[in-house]
Amino acid sequence: MKESSLNAGELQFNYAKRYFEEFISVRPKLAELIDKVDTPALLMDLEGVKTRFVDVRYHLPEVNVFYAVKANDHIDILRALAEVGAGFEVASSEELGKVLSLGVQPERVISSNPVKPLDFIDYAYGVGVNRFAVDSFPEVDKIARAAPRARVYVRLTVPNEGSEWPLSRKFGVDVNTAVEILEYAKNRGLVPIGLTFHVGSQCNNLRNWFIAIKRSAQLWEAARLKGIRLLVLNMGGGIPVRYLQESLSVEDIAYYVRGLLRKYFPTSPYELQIEPGRGIVGDQGIMVVGVVGTATRGEENWLYIDTGVFNGLAEALGGIRYPTYLKREGELKEWVIGGISCDSMDVVAKRVFLPEPAVGDRLFILSAGAYTTVYGANFNGFPPPKVICL
Amino acid sequence: MKESSLNAGELQFNYAKRYFEEFISVRPKLAELIDKVDTPALLMDLEGVKTRFVDVRYHLPEVNVFYAVKANDHIDILRALAEVGAGFEVASSEELGKVLSLGVQPERVISSNPVKPLDFIDYAYGVGVNRFAVDSFPEVDKIARAAPRARVYVRLTVPNEGSEWPLSRKFGVDVNTAVEILEYAKNRGLVPIGLTFHVGSQCNNLRNWFIAIKRSAQLWEAARLKGIRLLVLNMGGGIPVRYLQESLSVEDIAYYVRGLLRKYFPTSPYELQIEPGRGIVGDQGIMVVGVVGTATRGEENWLYIDTGVFNGLAEALGGIRYPTYLKREGELKEWVIGGISCDSMDVVAKRVFLPEPAVGDRLFILSAGAYTTVYGANFNGFPPPKVICL
Repeated sequence: MKESSLNAGELQFNYAKRYFEEFISVRPKLAELIDKVDTPALLMDLEGVKTRFVDVRYHLPEVNVFYAVKANDHIDILRALAEVGAGFEVASSEELGKVLSLGVQPERVISSNPVKPLDFIDYAYGVGVNRFAVDSFPEVDKIARAAPRARVYVRLTVPNEGSEWPLSRKFGVDVNTAVEILEYAKNRGLVPIGLTFHVGSQCNNLRNWFIAIKRSAQLWEAARLKGIRLLVLNMGGGIPVRYLQESLSVEDIAYYVRGLLRKYFPTSPYELQIEPGRGIVGDQGIMVVGVVGTATRGEENWLYIDTGVFNGLAEALGGIRYPTYLKREGELKEWVIGGISCDSMDVVAKRVFLPEPAVGDRLFILSAGAYTTVYGANFNGFPPPKVICL
Repeated sequence: MKESSLNAGELQFNYAKRYFEEFISVRPKLAELIDKVDTPALLMDLEGVKTRFVDVRYHLPEVNVFYAVKANDHIDILRALAEVGAGFEVASSEELGKVLSLGVQPERVISSNPVKPLDFIDYAYGVGVNRFAVDSFPEVDKIARAAPRARVYVRLTVPNEGSEWPLSRKFGVDVNTAVEILEYAKNRGLVPIGLTFHVGSQCNNLRNWFIAIKRSAQLWEAARLKGIRLLVLNMGGGIPVRYLQESLSVEDIAYYVRGLLRKYFPTSPYELQIEPGRGIVGDQGIMVVGVVGTATRGEENWLYIDTGVFNGLAEALGGIRYPTYLKREGELKEWVIGGISCDSMDVVAKRVFLPEPAVGDRLFILSAGAYTTVYGANFNGFPPPKVICL
């Protein structure tokens, strides 16, 4: 191995090792399970989830926080967040049903998916959920039909450069169209209350926030000129989690966003909202997986684990690089990590530096709390990692 | 729209329409359900699955056919195939358990996943499965431990150019290493019986078969010189299904492969095997999905359906283009098809030509029988399409 890449390998392994040791040292309940739980498993720290939520609220006290349920919809996580007063952002009847089953008031629930199934709108409005995102005229028609007089907020497109999981053009409209949609909604009997944007998941580019808030202010003013007074500024998600790189903290983002709001919204909106998902649960979960084999393939060292991209590590295909640790000493080697299925697309990571493992060893995948098991299928007869919340 | 692209659109739509009409016309049971089943649903034609299997066996009568369970593991499909005498290729305890529950003899089961969980080997060997793929020394050790005296076959790498779903370097070894692994297996008390290769799923490049069989013959001879007489030539999967392009038929491939075998294996192997999955079930399923919304985004027309890449259309991300039909007349427009979740990566298809749909319309996705619902998760609270076998 070349010296420079070995040094990079040592840095990577030491980073993962330090992260693992710090993570475990303050979580005795997880530390106890980590070497004996059946693999594969995702261990979630419920106290950590609550602390993250409270931390976000502490740094953004003037903002209402709605947890994006899709990031991790385990009922224990939803319950923990309900206990500390979280709101919830949902997209489906199943997500809404889970949240309501915990006794959460429907006023604490919003739905920011701009294109929703009709039966979901019907159910949600029926139980008292009354804030829905829109970004097209047909969606306004649908809501006007299923939920007359409902409150709607429009989704604005903003740049996503520098987000690890950038959004496509699937959702959102420009300022002019947004105003037209708000007007159209008003004419159809709905109540236009505000706007939403999304800077992209895992966003480490502050410039996106800058453009998003500036553009929001333009829409705010354009709506006012048409006689529509907006009340709600929903700033979406995007709070990043540390993976193999360090990332912006909630405190950093809060400081920056608050400055932007002072500049562009000298009169503060009636209600500010954010809807973090990854930012709340991402770094509160550790996945424990087992080594099922190793192989040398030409120049490559392969290491095979008992889960894969189809069972919960789908974001690996999109470029997320999880810190990964193995409790062994010895010379570091560069590995490709293959998933359990016999599908050759099932490759979990490349350029991972670890000591040589034996079959049966445990691999610890850090920052695995968000967008993992929720993407998990039962492909090839291998179920997603079991989620254990402690 | 430019004239050339509109013509391409008409060709595409007419192709999908003709495919749909032919498909339905010979399947009265499906035809009856197609307009009334709750969406999303995957309708599978069991008679069609059996016919495909019999067709493969007809064109390759000297070859034992093992259905790759991972392509679609619905119990009704496995039962239908068991009835017509299929063998099965499995990778996990769950897949094996399903197959055995149908009364299939373990002698009709093989496992071609070159890196297997130890408890699976233990279970499989215990019930009488006795053919396992290997492609590394640690795997030989593992099998020797859990399944002493088991029969093993080695996985050879072959080129995958021209396959729509090419395999990575995750599995397989070169001829020299393959011989070393076979010798090592023999020394560890195992019985080396043959070799396997995989030309890549959805393989439309006959050259891959050529190189694979030629290389197999080299390994066959190299093993013989080391005193190992091989018996089994497993030719993997790769039989393609028609999506938006026409593809090679089983008949085409059989004719070509038989010629190669005559040339490179003048003395035929004791047993020939193939393990098609997609080729058996791919074109026997139609997915019926509902339209939940439409939107114009700049130049793009978006159409949103009630399932998505996380619920069963994951191969769309890998480039599979399903023929897609909508029962409406009228001017064709070019659409981007968005999935149901609020994840912006959830985009099912681009450049699909269809008439303008209304919310509630049904979209018919053809050739959806393989690698769809098996990849399906419950992301965002939207379950995979229900599978109905008729």
